[in-house]
Amino acid sequence: MLAYKAPLRDMQFVAHELLKSEAHYEKIGAEDASRDMVDAILTEGAKFSEQVLAPLYISGDDGCELVDGKVITPAGFKEAYAQYVDAGWPSIASSVEHGGQGLPESIATYISEMASTANWAWGMYPGLSHGAKHTIEAFGTDEQKSRFLEPLITGEVTGTMCLTEPHCGSDLGLLKTRADNKADGAFSINGTKIFISAGDHDFTDNIIHVVLARLPGAPEGTKGISLFIVPKLKADGSSNGVTCGALEHKMGIHGNSTAVLNFDDAEGYLLGAENEGLKAMFTFMNVARLGTAMQGVAAAELSFQGSLEYAKDRLAMRSLTGPKFPEKAADPIIVHPDVRRMLMTQKAVAEGGRAMIYYCSFLVDTVAHSKDADEVNHATELLGFLTPIAKAFLTEMGLEAANHGIQIYGGHGFIKEWGMEQIVRDTRIATLYEGTTGIQALDLLGRKVMMTQGESLKTFTKVIHKFCEANAEGDIAEFTSVLSGLNKEWGAVTMELAMKASQNREEVGGASVDYLMYSGFITLAYFWADMARESMEKLAAGTDDADFYKAKIATARFYFQRMLPRVAGHKAMMTNGVESMMALDAEHFAF
Amino acid sequence: MLAYKAPLRDMQFVAHELLKSEAHYEKIGAEDASRDMVDAILTEGAKFSEQVLAPLYISGDDGCELVDGKVITPAGFKEAYAQYVDAGWPSIASSVEHGGQGLPESIATYISEMASTANWAWGMYPGLSHGAKHTIEAFGTDEQKSRFLEPLITGEVTGTMCLTEPHCGSDLGLLKTRADNKADGAFSINGTKIFISAGDHDFTDNIIHVVLARLPGAPEGTKGISLFIVPKLKADGSSNGVTCGALEHKMGIHGNSTAVLNFDDAEGYLLGAENEGLKAMFTFMNVARLGTAMQGVAAAELSFQGSLEYAKDRLAMRSLTGPKFPEKAADPIIVHPDVRRMLMTQKAVAEGGRAMIYYCSFLVDTVAHSKDADEVNHATELLGFLTPIAKAFLTEMGLEAANHGIQIYGGHGFIKEWGMEQIVRDTRIATLYEGTTGIQALDLLGRKVMMTQGESLKTFTKVIHKFCEANAEGDIAEFTSVLSGLNKEWGAVTMELAMKASQNREEVGGASVDYLMYSGFITLAYFWADMARESMEKLAAGTDDADFYKAKIATARFYFQRMLPRVAGHKAMMTNGVESMMALDAEHFAF
Repeated sequence: MLAYKAPLRDMQFVAHELLKSEAHYEKIGAEDASRDMVDAILTEGAKFSEQVLAPLYISGDDGCELVDGKVITPAGFKEAYAQYVDAGWPSIASSVEHGGQGLPESIATYISEMASTANWAWGMYPGLSHGAKHTIEAFGTDEQKSRFLEPLITGEVTGTMCLTEPHCGSDLGLLKTRADNKADGAFSINGTKIFISAGDHDFTDNIIHVVLARLPGAPEGTKGISLFIVPKLKADGSSNGVTCGALEHKMGIHGNSTAVLNFDDAEGYLLGAENEGLKAMFTFMNVARLGTAMQGVAAAELSFQGSLEYAKDRLAMRSLTGPKFPEKAADPIIVHPDVRRMLMTQKAVAEGGRAMIYYCSFLVDTVAHSKDADEVNHATELLGFLTPIAKAFLTEMGLEAANHGIQIYGGHGFIKEWGMEQIVRDTRIATLYEGTTGIQALDLLGRKVMMTQGESLKTFTKVIHKFCEANAEGDIAEFTSVLSGLNKEWGAVTMELAMKASQNREEVGGASVDYLMYSGFITLAYFWADMARESMEKLAAGTDDADFYKAKIATARFYFQRMLPRVAGHKAMMTNGVESMMALDAEHFAF
Repeated sequence: MLAYKAPLRDMQFVAHELLKSEAHYEKIGAEDASRDMVDAILTEGAKFSEQVLAPLYISGDDGCELVDGKVITPAGFKEAYAQYVDAGWPSIASSVEHGGQGLPESIATYISEMASTANWAWGMYPGLSHGAKHTIEAFGTDEQKSRFLEPLITGEVTGTMCLTEPHCGSDLGLLKTRADNKADGAFSINGTKIFISAGDHDFTDNIIHVVLARLPGAPEGTKGISLFIVPKLKADGSSNGVTCGALEHKMGIHGNSTAVLNFDDAEGYLLGAENEGLKAMFTFMNVARLGTAMQGVAAAELSFQGSLEYAKDRLAMRSLTGPKFPEKAADPIIVHPDVRRMLMTQKAVAEGGRAMIYYCSFLVDTVAHSKDADEVNHATELLGFLTPIAKAFLTEMGLEAANHGIQIYGGHGFIKEWGMEQIVRDTRIATLYEGTTGIQALDLLGRKVMMTQGESLKTFTKVIHKFCEANAEGDIAEFTSVLSGLNKEWGAVTMELAMKASQNREEVGGASVDYLMYSGFITLAYFWADMARESMEKLAAGTDDADFYKAKIATARFYFQRMLPRVAGHKAMMTNGVESMMALDAEHFAF
């Protein structure tokens, strides 16, 4: 029924044509990553995702079970992981020094997109390993790397990220897990962590937990948090005092084991410097945030695929302009404008979001591999600015797109067998974990934009400005004229908010989510305008693939006319001030 | 944890103060319904909802089971229904002639609001009976009324509404269930119905199904559909060939049995005229649509209550303007503007939606009981116009409010035990059943507004115009100046769409959902402005309840500043034309 098909043509369009992957990979010294080589990898990744992971999507919703302290994952999940490891996928973007294949991060992104769209809950297991890998690679000692990083790279073990505790999620300053010195230089870790994705499972014997905890006498709050590596098994294979106390009963992503982990005198190893754990954790989190942004694209893509098939097949009513299929009992619902509005919205989010994320992953490549310090700085700034937008805006829009999937199926969208409601349940977590939409919005407006006096915003508006200037004439002006106006407005509105905030700090919080959504719509408009430009150029040059490029331009037009105008509401709301939301005392919200 | 508390003060404010219930009930000849009497009923209804139904909310999510052809409802549901019947609730608004208490429909609405907010899945069982009752009351013969209506009124049986078939939902013209004449004047019903809410259960022995089917030789499409009463049990208590083939596996409302019903030579009785079943069914559906509108209010109210409690309790971070509770490890999250934005949104939807629905239910009273033909006509027109808005806009906003509930709880919102994700799953059906948002939008813009050359819209904009004129001066002008501008714009935009539609019929479909949301925001603005007016008047006159009225005005202000500006986006999108969504051929949506 719901059968994921990797959108290879679109992935290639974005990577190779829009973002000029060959030039990019050459520039960062990854000349091996030729277009042919990337395409060969994509083809293999597509096969694995379509044939192995997609068939486990709906059955995986049956969930994980905790039996006698052991987590049993859904049927087929473990075997799929074994195939994934055998094929060498975990090592694709890791350093050759530690057994990896040394390809740029963006190539891992393509693979992770396909795997995760086919089966998000499954994809989280390697996804979490990926974050743990990055952290150990960045902060681990040589010994830690050889003991923990290398098996993560082969996929022999998986990793986790243990932050949240029952009383604290967004505010990690409140965390209580303790790390006490032991005689041998290791630490004894004690405490309880909750919501640990991929926290325990039957894929591998060992699991490498990256854990936030407090050293004795550490300062209170976020300045007293250190990072530890805590393996599930000790070096001799015996248990290390990390047990799965329970699995959470969740709305979705049932195939992923969300564990309560109890650390009871577990042996841990300090990762990085004392009391600098939170800073280090951000390495992990920035990777995880872009990974979560992908969940928005994945939800939009998968629900789009399911919806499109259904919309072509399901018969109901006649087109308002007369029967389109008079020989059938009714027209397929794809003739109806409102069904198309929802399909086009899904498509605009999936394809536009893909461009946004690939763009970010190319920045990640540049930061990691470029030898040009200015280029690295510029990429780092852009990435810092775009990460909260990609994470929060794309996951909000992915949820909306997935809800359109239910809506297109009508009553059947509410029924489990079709998979549409599962996509909504699965993707509902995306606006919560790795920092809620509200946290991302504060990061964007407060930390990134306001704290740099708008410099961070300018880094990106300059990119847009240059693009609009270079494309001010001809057919593309349909898009660049609108975009250029919004780009200026973005700066002006930001200034207006800064003035308000200088009078009242609460204005930042009050405006933040509308500002984030506003910024997201403009950012996506830039990518749609650029895709329209690329498509117009291809058509002008002559191509065998005209339908593809024409569809791109049509979708860009839909986005500009039927989605982008939402900026008007966000702008008005964020500049209308915070007073109306601060007016009530807590006890006067209800009577 | 999640413990529903009936918002009696607000219900009384809307019914008695805003809508002047006493004058209304007197006018329609229901002088018995004094304020004291209504309040006594509310108090009893609140007790039942809070003490009997609310505790079964989360446990009811375990769902119904089909065992050996019998449906077993969640623990406690059956007993709660017995208490409900014993208390006489089913008969409250039914005619005295058939054993009812003869109170106006609006009073049943208050009760149904409380029951349904406490436990939507449970509330659907009596809710469906209610619709069946209305239909038999309107179209049944005396004999049918005494045999089927009277036990529905006592609650001795429940009712259903059997429309949907596997291949048709929105487009009932495609339905296939057959009704063949039998020798005794009855009919033999054969076919399969799906998605039958409360379709089978263990509350009562008998169930009265109201079924759409085709007579032999009936015209094709919607003109050949007739309505039948098909009891689960024959008069002698034996089975009547209606069996539950399966229960659907759904996203939510697990406590309600959504049945596949097989009719196999079931004995049915023609209800109303031959081939006029669909027209008759609209009696049922208009009642059901207002009932479903309530689901939006219920979702907003329940998630608001849960969110408010959590927001006062959960500690995270400090207020941007410095610690508000320095003695605590962090401030409760209700200090944060963005949390307040979400709480205020929930509150504005719940309270504003309540006003909209009570207003509609007073119109229902007037249509049913007024002796003044002009008044009946006016109320009928208003109701026809407002029903699709209330149904679609309030359920869309209820879903949004419920999603804010998850968001306020952060990661805990995704976990079942807190109930927040259940509200989202339960209310997700509301934009689908009884006509999807798309169907309501076509009903509003196509059938109601365009087909009356805008007269239907004018019926309501005149109400708003009169209100704004009468309240153009003083503090209330803060609201009426904005509302009056939008009210004019509403007419102008409608005219613009009519011009476009005269060139291209597709424009109606392309604009419809944005038009509906636009209309919904303005409609809700009217109710918020009117509530602000009432509150200002109460404050000016002097009151012991100043905090309540001040909170109303603050919420109205929040609505006008932080929600209503969304009309700008909807207006731009609906007037930007349908071309961009019609541009692609079906085969060019994906490559």
